[in-house]
Amino acid sequence: MTEDLLKKLVNTLSSLPGIGKKSAYRIGFHLIRMEETRFQQLIENLKEIKENIKFCKTCGSITDREVCDICLSETRSNEFLCVVEMPEDIFFIENTGEFKGKYHVLGGVISPIDGIGPDKLKISELLERLKSSSIKELLIATNPTLEGDATASYIANLLKDTDIRFTRIAHGVTIGSTLEFADQYTLGRAIRGRQKL
Amino acid sequence: MTEDLLKKLVNTLSSLPGIGKKSAYRIGFHLIRMEETRFQQLIENLKEIKENIKFCKTCGSITDREVCDICLSETRSNEFLCVVEMPEDIFFIENTGEFKGKYHVLGGVISPIDGIGPDKLKISELLERLKSSSIKELLIATNPTLEGDATASYIANLLKDTDIRFTRIAHGVTIGSTLEFADQYTLGRAIRGRQKL
Repeated sequence: MTEDLLKKLVNTLSSLPGIGKKSAYRIGFHLIRMEETRFQQLIENLKEIKENIKFCKTCGSITDREVCDICLSETRSNEFLCVVEMPEDIFFIENTGEFKGKYHVLGGVISPIDGIGPDKLKISELLERLKSSSIKELLIATNPTLEGDATASYIANLLKDTDIRFTRIAHGVTIGSTLEFADQYTLGRAIRGRQKL
Repeated sequence: MTEDLLKKLVNTLSSLPGIGKKSAYRIGFHLIRMEETRFQQLIENLKEIKENIKFCKTCGSITDREVCDICLSETRSNEFLCVVEMPEDIFFIENTGEFKGKYHVLGGVISPIDGIGPDKLKISELLERLKSSSIKELLIATNPTLEGDATASYIANLLKDTDIRFTRIAHGVTIGSTLEFADQYTLGRAIRGRQKL
């Protein structure tokens, strides 16, 4: 019976992304040991957020209103659009402080193996959005995976007859790391994408 | 406001052990995207477990009764006791299927820097338990850290006038790995603890 409860706890936690069996045990026991009021607070926080967060009608990011702050911003460029796979990617990019345009969330990448075709993604919404906008550059920041690259090419191909400039995030050696630890593909791309000193 | 909610979500999740900021974002967005009924189920599971799990009066492991299944077991040896830091360690050891005795949870290790002296651990309970038992071997399975080793020595020293045999978990090279990847201390201990072929 304890075994069953523990299994349920571990299964519940390891259903979350990036949490394996061992982490689930560690977190599970932490929750079991947690003071009752702090546990209740944690549960309340999760419920509050779940209830209040919605997806932005324009870009697909998260917001607590109809349209998110970034889409409504008047200080950000309307000529520069960054296409990402998931809403969380926006927060990783925002953290860099390097991008001052707007965003568009695809909701995934084209992946025939998982049955995800272009129609399952917000690509038609992207085309619609581009029609009625002044966008000059599209930074396609899908992940540097086979699917991410294929999705980027697919979108660029759809729009090849427009004047839009297409860009991809650069690949290269991690800052603070050494060439030794870069895999051959990354290092190869870093050489091809070399920058003038 | 969305930023505040998201910060709250990330802070709530990254307060859990082993979850950093990036994992918290990943898990947070997963929860946001999760279907409402599945989310409610997750919350209910966590609450049910939190309500029903208690600590075993004998060994300190988790149980849904007064005394846990392992302590009550009549097929497990009462002569062989394994001392661990935390209840979760029991589950890692049980997974190996190599130990058929009983357990005792210390609730931590001696760590002066964190203000944890022997009085904060279940050491007096261990001594009490040993008095009224037929234990012949004490496997002190605290972690192979400075504090874990010191705690093991402390316990062995307290009991040095008894007939109990003290053992520690062996250190050595990870199975499937190579000597190259073992750190010098582990490899040193693996050599000292070499086994007859």
